[in-house]
Amino acid sequence: MRQAARILAIQTSGQGLVEITREVAGWAAGQGMTTGLLTVFCRHTSASLLIQENADPDVQRDLETWIARVAPESRDWIHQDEGPDDMPAHLRAALTGVQLSIPLIGGRLALGTWQGIYLFEHRRRPHRREVALHLLGD
Amino acid sequence: MRQAARILAIQTSGQGLVEITREVAGWAAGQGMTTGLLTVFCRHTSASLLIQENADPDVQRDLETWIARVAPESRDWIHQDEGPDDMPAHLRAALTGVQLSIPLIGGRLALGTWQGIYLFEHRRRPHRREVALHLLGD
Amino acid sequence: MRQAARILAIQTSGQGLVEITREVAGWAAGQGMTTGLLTVFCRHTSASLLIQENADPDVQRDLETWIARVAPESRDWIHQDEGPDDMPAHLRAALTGVQLSIPLIGGRLALGTWQGIYLFEHRRRPHRREVALHLLGD
Repeated sequence: MRQAARILAIQTSGQGLVEITREVAGWAAGQGMTTGLLTVFCRHTSASLLIQENADPDVQRDLETWIARVAPESRDWIHQDEGPDDMPAHLRAALTGVQLSIPLIGGRLALGTWQGIYLFEHRRRPHRREVALHLLGD
Repeated sequence: MRQAARILAIQTSGQGLVEITREVAGWAAGQGMTTGLLTVFCRHTSASLLIQENADPDVQRDLETWIARVAPESRDWIHQDEGPDDMPAHLRAALTGVQLSIPLIGGRLALGTWQGIYLFEHRRRPHRREVALHLLGD
Repeated sequence: MRQAARILAIQTSGQGLVEITREVAGWAAGQGMTTGLLTVFCRHTSASLLIQENADPDVQRDLETWIARVAPESRDWIHQDEGPDDMPAHLRAALTGVQLSIPLIGGRLALGTWQGIYLFEHRRRPHRREVALHLLGD
């Protein structure tokens, strides 16, 4: 049994979902393990991680519309330090979470046919985000 | 230290929570480990996983009512390929997530007294769902 | 490769976020590992776990305001056994989840600069909560 770890840097271009399946699965495959556990961890409080459908881009647009309704911009928020998109970004990151663990079985991540891994940027401006990858297995 | 993995198939009968604690805990117990980490991973984008109270079935009904309000069916969603329950199913899966990790301590999953593991089916029609189980420990 | 596990007891003083970063990170550091995976698991259905900004306390207040809107107290809930804060507590725990996994890299948890680990108490009255910690690595 052994471990591998890496920090992945991802450039975002403002609010929305950025698919990172290829980078994450590619790194995991490169470790040459057959069975294991992959953990993906977003090191931010205004961006988050999500596993969602990667077939129809409309799903991603609807997800963005929905999260903006559930955790809206509002003058009610006390915390406005970095503008109106600051506090909603924290709420949206709380809603979807910053961590995913995916089993590696038979040399492949156990993702379903339509599952993609996404970084969800919640700030309006582009950001450089860091995602920690950790794989444990043999 | 060693690993075990399995794909569990679960038949759902339409929208709602399906308790899978017995199947999951039974499989984990059967691996004969004392300390470890169990990961449960749902391989779908319109069904999800949840740990919730397993005592009063009213809690499950209220959870179903609530999620239908927070992520409602609506003509607003662009993605309607498989009907009005299609996009809300993705939203509800995003809300509760598709992955759980539960420590195994002293030969038992560290679940609290009232905690049960549920598969949350978000589509109206029955589906056959796959849940990947992974256990690492000794 | 080896494992360590512990049950951490946390006293809450009613609804709100309780930061537990120091207790969790301190325990993890004490295991003397360089690379590994830490899992934090809340053994309750009316309290949950969250990673969020630990700099400005206003963020925590806004989070509390927001979650009370998304999963409100209501006479609609069937389950009212322990009062009006009973069912909303279950909903809020479902929303944020009860489990976190954080990689340990270079002897430190991979938490970002502004990330803190919080126990989120959803009941009005103070409770003694149990959080299971599990660390696997070398």
